[in-house]
Amino acid sequence: MPRIALKVEYHGAPFAGWQRQADQPSVQGAIEDALGKLETGPHTIAAAGRTDSGVHGLAQVAHCDLTKDWDPFRLSEALNFHLKPLPVAIVDAVRVDDDWHARFSAVERRYLFRILMRRAPATHQAGLVWQVNQHLDVTAMQAGADMLLGHHDFTTFRSSICQAASPVKTLDELRIEPVEMPWGSEVHFHVRARSFLHNQVRSFVGTLERVGAGSWAPEDVREALEACDRAACGPVSPPQGLYLAGVGYPEAPF
Amino acid sequence: MPRIALKVEYHGAPFAGWQRQADQPSVQGAIEDALGKLETGPHTIAAAGRTDSGVHGLAQVAHCDLTKDWDPFRLSEALNFHLKPLPVAIVDAVRVDDDWHARFSAVERRYLFRILMRRAPATHQAGLVWQVNQHLDVTAMQAGADMLLGHHDFTTFRSSICQAASPVKTLDELRIEPVEMPWGSEVHFHVRARSFLHNQVRSFVGTLERVGAGSWAPEDVREALEACDRAACGPVSPPQGLYLAGVGYPEAPF
Repeated sequence: MPRIALKVEYHGAPFAGWQRQADQPSVQGAIEDALGKLETGPHTIAAAGRTDSGVHGLAQVAHCDLTKDWDPFRLSEALNFHLKPLPVAIVDAVRVDDDWHARFSAVERRYLFRILMRRAPATHQAGLVWQVNQHLDVTAMQAGADMLLGHHDFTTFRSSICQAASPVKTLDELRIEPVEMPWGSEVHFHVRARSFLHNQVRSFVGTLERVGAGSWAPEDVREALEACDRAACGPVSPPQGLYLAGVGYPEAPF
Repeated sequence: MPRIALKVEYHGAPFAGWQRQADQPSVQGAIEDALGKLETGPHTIAAAGRTDSGVHGLAQVAHCDLTKDWDPFRLSEALNFHLKPLPVAIVDAVRVDDDWHARFSAVERRYLFRILMRRAPATHQAGLVWQVNQHLDVTAMQAGADMLLGHHDFTTFRSSICQAASPVKTLDELRIEPVEMPWGSEVHFHVRARSFLHNQVRSFVGTLERVGAGSWAPEDVREALEACDRAACGPVSPPQGLYLAGVGYPEAPF
């Protein structure tokens, strides 16, 4: 059973999330169905991160086991053919060892969050950004973000339905970058850790947006973190600005 | 009749183009219908450039005449409310003199064309870029583009249905910029002139793409220009990468 690692991009809007569900469309289900057009199933693929409904993938990583010894490039082309017209694309594919696992071998997850700062409704990037009406102070947001870096109990920034064994995680990067796009001024949050709690990135971004708007002081972020209390979190941002942007492994498969 | 200038952004996909048509959806028709919700019509708005089916607007400029003395900001908010859920947004609005005209006062049009260079189908930016499978040589494309600058007979780059009085135009800028986006490598063409022939930008981009791919030498662009023959043009690019990005006036209204 040759094992193939897939790098997957997808638009989150039409899906109830990554994970296959009995009665709702999912990205996992779409790819498994496409695999079923190539080899008799059932197929079950494993992924590095289970994204929520509406969250996008830029470089999700999954693996599949197949019977035939597929050339990885031809496999990606065949999958992309069968995935049409769904907004899911296999961006890269490589052969990996049989004991390599998209989820359990991963040592880092990277997320991107896009905020578009403008008042008029977005036309081209609707559903791909969180649109906020006012200008955000990037310097203040970065000062708040810096207080979240490192090894902490992140209970404040954890969804009540989170199933992680421990709320203690290490945040390796939370870098906030202003980016001029043809359609307006965006702010990009680059977030990196070995693993994340459920809704952690959206809780960070929603809280830091309050800092950028001037409602919170940067120091309030430290207080919220130290409270270890979900009620101390700012509003959780909506999902459509969030992208799983990359997964790290001890040896890069792609 | 106070005259108001509108800066308009729109997604070209659902429309048969800017211009109102009896039996097909148009951007002009959508805005005129929204105006009809505010003041009894009929309303007829004039625009700086009539974009084709599938072509986008980032900063199209139009003007309307109203009976009531609207505050321009409140007018833009009211129009955006009535334009929902269509992908058309009034990005700015200002009061202008009664003899100011969105089309006839304009002295410059600016276009952006986006190419996305990658093989896997685009998921987030589908319909917003022209996707090409191979890497394009930006330096070679710029060398070809430089031969188009200035005052020329652009018959080669003019659609057969073009209604302009003369094929002689002055091209002020054709700058080609590589841009790294989260979803891959793009090439942006920034094109600027007082006015354009029909399909001129798409004819430029389609021809220069052939240069970037190595099928044409940069010097072939000069030969094509000098031929003054539509048959000498490269393939015309598809519409979905093209954006009307700005309009210049002797005094900036916005």
